[in-house]
Amino acid sequence: MPSTELISKLKNTVTTISDFPSKGIQFKDISPIFLDPKLYEEVIKDLADFSRGKIDAVCGIESRGYLFGIAIAVALEVPFILIRKKGKLPPPFIGEKYDLENGSAEIEIKRDQLKPGSRVLIHDDLLATGGTTKAAGNLVEKLGGIVSQFSFLINLEELNGEKKLENFKADIYSVLKY
Amino acid sequence: MPSTELISKLKNTVTTISDFPSKGIQFKDISPIFLDPKLYEEVIKDLADFSRGKIDAVCGIESRGYLFGIAIAVALEVPFILIRKKGKLPPPFIGEKYDLENGSAEIEIKRDQLKPGSRVLIHDDLLATGGTTKAAGNLVEKLGGIVSQFSFLINLEELNGEKKLENFKADIYSVLKY
Repeated sequence: MPSTELISKLKNTVTTISDFPSKGIQFKDISPIFLDPKLYEEVIKDLADFSRGKIDAVCGIESRGYLFGIAIAVALEVPFILIRKKGKLPPPFIGEKYDLENGSAEIEIKRDQLKPGSRVLIHDDLLATGGTTKAAGNLVEKLGGIVSQFSFLINLEELNGEKKLENFKADIYSVLKY
Repeated sequence: MPSTELISKLKNTVTTISDFPSKGIQFKDISPIFLDPKLYEEVIKDLADFSRGKIDAVCGIESRGYLFGIAIAVALEVPFILIRKKGKLPPPFIGEKYDLENGSAEIEIKRDQLKPGSRVLIHDDLLATGGTTKAAGNLVEKLGGIVSQFSFLINLEELNGEKKLENFKADIYSVLKY
């Protein structure tokens, strides 16, 4: 659980931009967090505390999922595995498609980096409708990993992303909820 | 200067994939570094040592530039500023175009995150022809920053990227050269 103080600092730091990237979207800009290394470290400590002792690897989703994910993995001394957008990872890899509002997208993971049976934390900065995160979970299961945890900096609760992840029976944690 | 031992460990970890993403390219896959948190921390220490006391901010280029860039900034207790691909940052931002082999691309930086007069390290994982990195330097200068340093995990020396950066009169450092 993040402290009330951390939540308050973060809510004063993250800004909301209306109608970006398209009309009707309330965009959460997390980039000011990275201007304050002390605050960033507090966030990492909070995210690492959630996962300590419970995971064997972190999978981070490109690209903002890298910004916290790599530091969580280093804090817990476990491997960090990249989940990338289609076309960026060299073979051997596997991919998973998911639906977007208009059309579809695909993410990929290397085939040889996750030990079967590993307990995995899937991390991204934002949980919205959960489509990307669910696809990431499917990738981990295809490789024989156990999806043990999901963590996010932000959960946009009204979009019901947690519902889409319930089949994984994993623990879900978000530092901030809107 | 990286130790001979670090260079040797890294060269045993980074793999080369021929003809990826297109024919004739020898792709350097750095992802195995992130599987080894101790090795990753050694790389961060080496990169941070190059910049310690010499910079006021780090700009990291999306997306692999985030993986080392954020940790360099945290180690040096300075702000980390995202340089993103076009269309991902909310306003206010400025953009800079650069040429690719086929066509062009554009990167963007927020307008309000860099203090004028700041000494900036621009970090990316890879220096190839230098086009993206030069565009990043131009963005920093447009905002009144001083491009003091460039650092890379890998410099593909035969592509002569350093030549493209010489107008900045900045120090350039690469952990690995190929």
